[in-house]
Amino acid sequence: MADFSPSDHTLMARALRLAERGAFTTRPNPMVGCVIAKSEEVVGEGFHQRAGEAHAEVVALQAAGAEAKGATAYVTLEPCAHTGRTGPCTDALLEAGVSRVVAAMRDPFPEVDGAGFDRLRAAGIEVASGLMEAQSRALNRGYLSRMVRGRPWVRVKLATSLDGRSALANGESKWISGEASRYDVQRWRARAGAIITGAGTVLVDDPSLTVRLGDDTPFEPPLRVVLDPGLATIARGRVREGDAPTLYVHAPQTKLSRSIDAQLAVVAVEKGRFDLQAVLRLLAQRGINEVQVEAGATLAAAFLEAGLVDELLLYVAPVLLGSHARPLFDGLDIQHMTERMQLDVVETRRLGEDIRVLLRPKGGAA
Amino acid sequence: MADFSPSDHTLMARALRLAERGAFTTRPNPMVGCVIAKSEEVVGEGFHQRAGEAHAEVVALQAAGAEAKGATAYVTLEPCAHTGRTGPCTDALLEAGVSRVVAAMRDPFPEVDGAGFDRLRAAGIEVASGLMEAQSRALNRGYLSRMVRGRPWVRVKLATSLDGRSALANGESKWISGEASRYDVQRWRARAGAIITGAGTVLVDDPSLTVRLGDDTPFEPPLRVVLDPGLATIARGRVREGDAPTLYVHAPQTKLSRSIDAQLAVVAVEKGRFDLQAVLRLLAQRGINEVQVEAGATLAAAFLEAGLVDELLLYVAPVLLGSHARPLFDGLDIQHMTERMQLDVVETRRLGEDIRVLLRPKGGAA
Repeated sequence: MADFSPSDHTLMARALRLAERGAFTTRPNPMVGCVIAKSEEVVGEGFHQRAGEAHAEVVALQAAGAEAKGATAYVTLEPCAHTGRTGPCTDALLEAGVSRVVAAMRDPFPEVDGAGFDRLRAAGIEVASGLMEAQSRALNRGYLSRMVRGRPWVRVKLATSLDGRSALANGESKWISGEASRYDVQRWRARAGAIITGAGTVLVDDPSLTVRLGDDTPFEPPLRVVLDPGLATIARGRVREGDAPTLYVHAPQTKLSRSIDAQLAVVAVEKGRFDLQAVLRLLAQRGINEVQVEAGATLAAAFLEAGLVDELLLYVAPVLLGSHARPLFDGLDIQHMTERMQLDVVETRRLGEDIRVLLRPKGGAA
Repeated sequence: MADFSPSDHTLMARALRLAERGAFTTRPNPMVGCVIAKSEEVVGEGFHQRAGEAHAEVVALQAAGAEAKGATAYVTLEPCAHTGRTGPCTDALLEAGVSRVVAAMRDPFPEVDGAGFDRLRAAGIEVASGLMEAQSRALNRGYLSRMVRGRPWVRVKLATSLDGRSALANGESKWISGEASRYDVQRWRARAGAIITGAGTVLVDDPSLTVRLGDDTPFEPPLRVVLDPGLATIARGRVREGDAPTLYVHAPQTKLSRSIDAQLAVVAVEKGRFDLQAVLRLLAQRGINEVQVEAGATLAAAFLEAGLVDELLLYVAPVLLGSHARPLFDGLDIQHMTERMQLDVVETRRLGEDIRVLLRPKGGAA
């Protein structure tokens, strides 16, 4: 790995912060930020805001104008070398006369995957990669998961009482978590390409699963995905209302009695349970990088048992619901302490009266 | 309330910090700190370390010597006016020629309760009370509870998984919480005058319930209290070993078949459950200010349902034990969301891999 100066780090950190501004909008593209600097002074910067629109490099180069000549470009991801909906960024960098390109990481996208670096080097440009790579990987966890594992990054969001209960025995679950938590969830939803829920949740809670940020921050509405083997809920529910698209995943043998204007997809069901790996593959094929599961205790447990949970986003409300209330993960069966599911606490935060805990299974993908 | 200067606050804060140094040793006495200052300069200070030994005022006056004349004494609790195991502090302050006494709060102990202030004022000393009273009350929560409510402050300590489980279905509970948490518990134990447990815990976990601080910090070993209606566990267990005393609380009709060298006390039992209010009264009569309950899910729930929990000390381990594992509070039955038990989060802290959460029931004693 190349040697990087303190100022290289500062400028890449700036590019990373810029990249993150695209978190709610770039899908299915990765978030990318770019800073053009000359003698450590920023002469242009930008980030990729929306698929189909200008890439970060192009935005930054336009801002830099003639100043880009002989400058260094800091990019959070390898510049593309292919023509997609926009032209190759490598060419834009070459045309602008940039003399050095520092990237945080290589882009595993098959049409790039080193070709961007090669093209720049072939043109005599100094190229260095790997600066703050961990941070860049963290930023694009979802995109990288789709590229490398062929499935989206899966975050399971749950609200729980202190005693690990998601609802009362009668199904009541409203007001477990507070207003600050309910608002916070919206920002996590806005990051996700899809929100998965189950037919049970549609029937009992009737959530709309739309993003309501409460301000004018732009976002791409995430796809709402209802796992409903028999399409029992297709005619109803707030999950079909609003601007966001809705996809119903159903079992192979299910037939609709009348035509309904809805997106449908078929996934195999075994013993009454969907093949969740197949559900995720299907979503990856549709360009979904990050999925947020907002479902009941049974579906959440099914994702866990299938080893498909990358991240657990837990809103713990300081209430007790008692031992007859519903468990957080229904059907998760552990017989011996050695089988206990271990997680790492990534972060804890107080949100109003609640505690938000972000966790990742030990030994899972980072 | 009197006007207090910024330097009054600084000096009282110092006295409060001093007082806290007696947390593990002063029982059954309250923690008290004293700072003697002249023209805002500290000339002597001290704290009450152990019942029967010198009170904070006396320690501070001794340190100040002749400098105490004309000085101000900052005390975290009203100076005593009666002769207990040591002489009245009011007289010591008068003899030393202190000209002003600033106290954080009045001492509700029946033999003091304003008499200390009266005696000082009668001698022509300027007396002001109420400076940082909330902090002083927080410091002596246990002592004040015993004085005012006639029962100790009750802290229930529990280790739980993320999904609110205290043990597996087979009873296995070892290694739910990590080493840092297990060490932290020791310091909470050392604060307590008594550790309460149940016969079930003695049988299953066989804890010693002694304090192991791992350094040479002095502490008074807390009384170990086993709630055992039929004295089924009296012949066994690590809870009888070590230097700390052990008290067995049993049902009225229970008779021992042979004589055993143990402290015994009788408390009424109804429907198989002890009158926990009576247990706590009994402990208050023995001078216990603060109780730590380290028991299983059933006894913990019984304290909760009786409305006798002042504080919940929760060690949350980032593990999942599944829906067949034992609940955190067994028998706590909540039918409607309006009946949910609401608490306030006092503090959260990361301890190794665990999260420690300190909570108090909403609307409970502060």
